[in-house]
Amino acid sequence: MITVLLVGQGNVAFHLKKAFDAVDEVHCLQISSRNISVVPKADIAIVAVSDDAIAEVSTALNTPLVVHTSGGMDIEILKNNTRKGVFYPLQSFSKTKKIDFSSIPIAVEATADQDYQLLETLGNFISTKVSRINSKQREILHVAAVFANNFTNHLFHISENICEEHQIDFDLLHPLMLETASKAVNLKPQQAQTGPAIRNDVQTIKKHLFLLPEKYKEIYQILTDSIQNGN
Amino acid sequence: MITVLLVGQGNVAFHLKKAFDAVDEVHCLQISSRNISVVPKADIAIVAVSDDAIAEVSTALNTPLVVHTSGGMDIEILKNNTRKGVFYPLQSFSKTKKIDFSSIPIAVEATADQDYQLLETLGNFISTKVSRINSKQREILHVAAVFANNFTNHLFHISENICEEHQIDFDLLHPLMLETASKAVNLKPQQAQTGPAIRNDVQTIKKHLFLLPEKYKEIYQILTDSIQNGN
Repeated sequence: MITVLLVGQGNVAFHLKKAFDAVDEVHCLQISSRNISVVPKADIAIVAVSDDAIAEVSTALNTPLVVHTSGGMDIEILKNNTRKGVFYPLQSFSKTKKIDFSSIPIAVEATADQDYQLLETLGNFISTKVSRINSKQREILHVAAVFANNFTNHLFHISENICEEHQIDFDLLHPLMLETASKAVNLKPQQAQTGPAIRNDVQTIKKHLFLLPEKYKEIYQILTDSIQNGN
Repeated sequence: MITVLLVGQGNVAFHLKKAFDAVDEVHCLQISSRNISVVPKADIAIVAVSDDAIAEVSTALNTPLVVHTSGGMDIEILKNNTRKGVFYPLQSFSKTKKIDFSSIPIAVEATADQDYQLLETLGNFISTKVSRINSKQREILHVAAVFANNFTNHLFHISENICEEHQIDFDLLHPLMLETASKAVNLKPQQAQTGPAIRNDVQTIKKHLFLLPEKYKEIYQILTDSIQNGN
């Protein structure tokens, strides 16, 4: 039995709690980060709070092993006096959206080898994709995730905005959006590239730049150039 | 029974043929665009060839109604002497990837009302999402699709590139990519926006710009600015 103290009440904590509660071998307690004057005993404390609160919350913890769940933060952000680690589930969570935790990659890091083993065991209870990733690699993974999630989502938003400005139903693009991700996962994204930029269809590119509102012209141009330059 | 002459052998023609062949009420003949000296009789000719070949191919056709399948082309690109229309399935097709045609939106346009009815009937045999979209609206839809498909796919490619340069397995990002599209479809993309840009996490943004190769810095900066400006 592994006893886990989950600190935080955000989206990551919410989904981790649900995942751990479905496992017989894990006993999971959850507390708010605003309520850590008395810390319940546990084998591992998982600090699932916003990046800028990790350091402060961790100072209050005396659990033998304290880990954070952030993609963008070094293991050294933890300021507890006990041992440290990272348990980073690589997914974008919302409380309103159900998720199958078993397919979510978990990037695990620990200074001590026995801690890594423990975190790996814990990870394997809820996911089939646990891997050892150090802070340097996780930093790169985090930049890559900004492109694959934050920026693509913003492009979806721009797409919606363009439709709405012309009273066109954005739902028409939904199957294309889902297929775009599915294709990039099943083929290499470079092989899936289509459109006026890769075809160097100068007339269409010119027409699109003319149609677009000022605020989107530069993004269109730079992404078109990047595709054409083979970057 | 509607008899369809499908001209072209690319991805769109390939999937339309499969979809029509599954419908009893449609008889579908397919010919190559290089082989239109003798044109079989049909109710509708569907010109599913590359954008720059549509005009030339259409001049050779004397089918009562000739339509093209392009998102980016005006109905007037057709140069046949008979009636004209558009039958645009809004999806990114590959021969190697199976697709459920019934969920693909088909944007239909025709000059004559009876032709629109015929194209709508034909569309309804293979899809549950047929809608009337004129050339002007389709132009906008096409720009929106460039953002939702071409550009997001390029960002997936950049993401893969960043991973590969640091020997990190890109597969780790696959669930995130699929969830990004799924979230943007199920929530509004603006509500799904997360990451350092929207949080104005200046330290992380600085670190990412430092980590990125020169060729990706400008894209990172411009998309970050766009998110922060609420564009």
